Amino acid sequence: MLRRDFVAEMVGALAVGCVGPGWRPRAGPPAGLGALSVAPDSLRVNPARLNRHLSQLAEFGRTPSGGTSRLAYSEADRAGRDYVRRLMREARLAVRVDTGGNILGRRPGRDPALPPILFGSHIDSVPEGGNYDGDVGSLGAIECVQTLAENGVVTRHPLEAVVFSNEEGGLIGSRAMIGELGPAELDLVSRSGKTIREGIPFIGGDPDRLALARRVRGDVACYLELHVEQGGTLHEAGVSIGVVEGIVGIRWYEVTIEGFANHAGTTPMDRRRDALLAAAQLILAVNGVVTAEPGRQVGTVGRISALPGAPNVIPGRVVLSVELRDLSAERIESLYRRVVVEAERIARDSGTRVSFRLLNENTPAPTDPAVRRVIAEACRSLGLSHRALPSGAGHDAQHLARIAPVGMIFVPSVDGISHSPAEFTRPEDVAQGADVLLQAILAIDRGGLEG
Amino acid sequence: MLRRDFVAEMVGALAVGCVGPGWRPRAGPPAGLGALSVAPDSLRVNPARLNRHLSQLAEFGRTPSGGTSRLAYSEADRAGRDYVRRLMREARLAVRVDTGGNILGRRPGRDPALPPILFGSHIDSVPEGGNYDGDVGSLGAIECVQTLAENGVVTRHPLEAVVFSNEEGGLIGSRAMIGELGPAELDLVSRSGKTIREGIPFIGGDPDRLALARRVRGDVACYLELHVEQGGTLHEAGVSIGVVEGIVGIRWYEVTIEGFANHAGTTPMDRRRDALLAAAQLILAVNGVVTAEPGRQVGTVGRISALPGAPNVIPGRVVLSVELRDLSAERIESLYRRVVVEAERIARDSGTRVSFRLLNENTPAPTDPAVRRVIAEACRSLGLSHRALPSGAGHDAQHLARIAPVGMIFVPSVDGISHSPAEFTRPEDVAQGADVLLQAILAIDRGGLEG
Repeated sequence: MLRRDFVAEMVGALAVGCVGPGWRPRAGPPAGLGALSVAPDSLRVNPARLNRHLSQLAEFGRTPSGGTSRLAYSEADRAGRDYVRRLMREARLAVRVDTGGNILGRRPGRDPALPPILFGSHIDSVPEGGNYDGDVGSLGAIECVQTLAENGVVTRHPLEAVVFSNEEGGLIGSRAMIGELGPAELDLVSRSGKTIREGIPFIGGDPDRLALARRVRGDVACYLELHVEQGGTLHEAGVSIGVVEGIVGIRWYEVTIEGFANHAGTTPMDRRRDALLAAAQLILAVNGVVTAEPGRQVGTVGRISALPGAPNVIPGRVVLSVELRDLSAERIESLYRRVVVEAERIARDSGTRVSFRLLNENTPAPTDPAVRRVIAEACRSLGLSHRALPSGAGHDAQHLARIAPVGMIFVPSVDGISHSPAEFTRPEDVAQGADVLLQAILAIDRGGLEG
Repeated sequence: MLRRDFVAEMVGALAVGCVGPGWRPRAGPPAGLGALSVAPDSLRVNPARLNRHLSQLAEFGRTPSGGTSRLAYSEADRAGRDYVRRLMREARLAVRVDTGGNILGRRPGRDPALPPILFGSHIDSVPEGGNYDGDVGSLGAIECVQTLAENGVVTRHPLEAVVFSNEEGGLIGSRAMIGELGPAELDLVSRSGKTIREGIPFIGGDPDRLALARRVRGDVACYLELHVEQGGTLHEAGVSIGVVEGIVGIRWYEVTIEGFANHAGTTPMDRRRDALLAAAQLILAVNGVVTAEPGRQVGTVGRISALPGAPNVIPGRVVLSVELRDLSAERIESLYRRVVVEAERIARDSGTRVSFRLLNENTPAPTDPAVRRVIAEACRSLGLSHRALPSGAGHDAQHLARIAPVGMIFVPSVDGISHSPAEFTRPEDVAQGADVLLQAILAIDRGGLEG
């Protein structure tokens, strides 16, 4: 660290009132007031403890492959959440569960008039998922306040560490927090087998009083989320930190192609209206449209069914998914229009009919530019390489962006593997991500978003 | 009819002994010996009766859509078979069920040393099938002997009308007849829910004594089968009769493409190993290889599954069927080799791996050239347009071809629709097909296959 920086940090530390009750230097004997042994900008999380906590959390829902099936509202989820609440209490947080099932650990600030800085992630997983997605950000958040507590740092703003409920099943906890979890959604059956309505009380919430969980603009100073990238950009580039530009918008279409089912042996090739042959052309067209221009847009056909589905029958009907993602809503619309043009041409040429049905849409959620600057500055002060990049995956942050400035910090996923037991982020990257989160919290607390 | 032909026919009729006991002209009072009012070549089936029988048979297993679900070994199958046996008895046939479950109606010939001329088809259907596939040939066969009986014609050869068991489930009855139905196959579960071993006694057979049903070369003079085309060639060309060149060979491969499943949002387009994108290229390649040269070869991808099958996950694994058919085994092999070359190129270019597994193979079964000539001559004598064509579908005839000369007579399927409630063959085409069958039986009986 350069001396000039050190002076600036000391000033900052004094400004945010790092000398609070219970302030302790990380090592050595308890120090009295004013006996600062560590400047706030020099604070670092405990890498060994954080990674140990990740290993311990991995035990809840552990699968034989070493992955995790900690489906929201499952026994494993509940047990994992109990574990997280214990960690929060050890970090001297006041722990509660809101009516949406979100775990909140609160630490008072010096100025009770200020809204809290909120930060966290989730711990539920997909079936046969990994041990980093959600876990890193949840335990990283707790590690930050633990570090502050151990060092006696009290911020101006209250701090709130959050573990959202049921992220993987549709960002349910954050949806409840912004007041958009409706009755219809409560009746959906989650992968645990429970409806959302049954699952929320199972983890301590109350689906009949969701309004109590709701926050509106002004209730939260800022939301920060540390997360693994889930893609390979950082890993391949050898960059330590991703400063997330935003969470891409997603449109998911169900596309139906109607041809004519007929006997595969008795129908000559030139007399067929083969829905799967048309579907194959469409799959290539989606890829062609999406890759036709530079950019980070993606398009995927992940699901397909051909009916009747017998080896000796020409498929008469194919239903497939087309999913388009980009940070720009305009670009998604433009990709969609071009895919439709291609699909109609294919249908015309193959004697089939094609129709698109929009099943789900998430609009792009840009992160706050000031928060991005704070995160980038934290990286610089920590000497960490960083790069701006979009989040191709959905995150609770996209909902919080509706009521507060949000920012996300990505750490590298080795080989970009995600939602898999093979998902891995190096221990040093986990700790560096938490350090960036900690420094970003402190910078925002000092007023880093102002001006 | 030209006079020259008439004379020739009279000679032929006398040669095959058409003046047998019980000979009756179709109309008018009973005639005495020698009082020939109808020459055998002038015999025609009763179109109204044959089509009435078709309508009556359609009642067994009738579905709300007007189609038929007369699955082999079902109650509907058993009831339909009882009905067929009643028709056989009305046609003065000696009826029995062999141990393979095949219904046989026998009519003695004048020369007990001669093997029977066998002809027929099946009455079991696919789920939600139609009312012509199998039925036309089964009831057409009975109509032929009914016509002979009414006209007092006794042939040299014994005649045997056959309704094979479980054609749609794998040509089971004819397989039993040629002695190739093995113990492993008996344990397969048919679409009725019964195993073959349970189904055969349900319709009067005996799976423990299948050897009794077996016939070897020399046991059958010839096998003839009337059937609907199940394709649109005859209908489109306006041709009345198809003289089947043979039953195509079939190879059914299961193809597996292994890519890498990953997050659809976080994996850039140029970092994907998308098994479904590769599969789409392969589907187009199969079509391209098969249509690259003239001929009646067909290739079909009828079944596909992409795993894990979520809209937001790049497919890591695709399994699909590739089915190739042609009358020439060499051409099938050549098509297969070219498809494999394309598949390996696609795999190389897409970072996937591809493997082929042969699941089932039927070798091509050419019909007997002399039988084809007899059928074509019958068409000419009846003034019916005809055309040689392959059978793209499998038939019991392909098994009988292993032990006897076989021939097949096709009648037009309107719009080529098959295995569907919409399957339809015009009543006049049904009757014309039965007339051709009748004349072919008589010609073969007269020695039409000799020399």
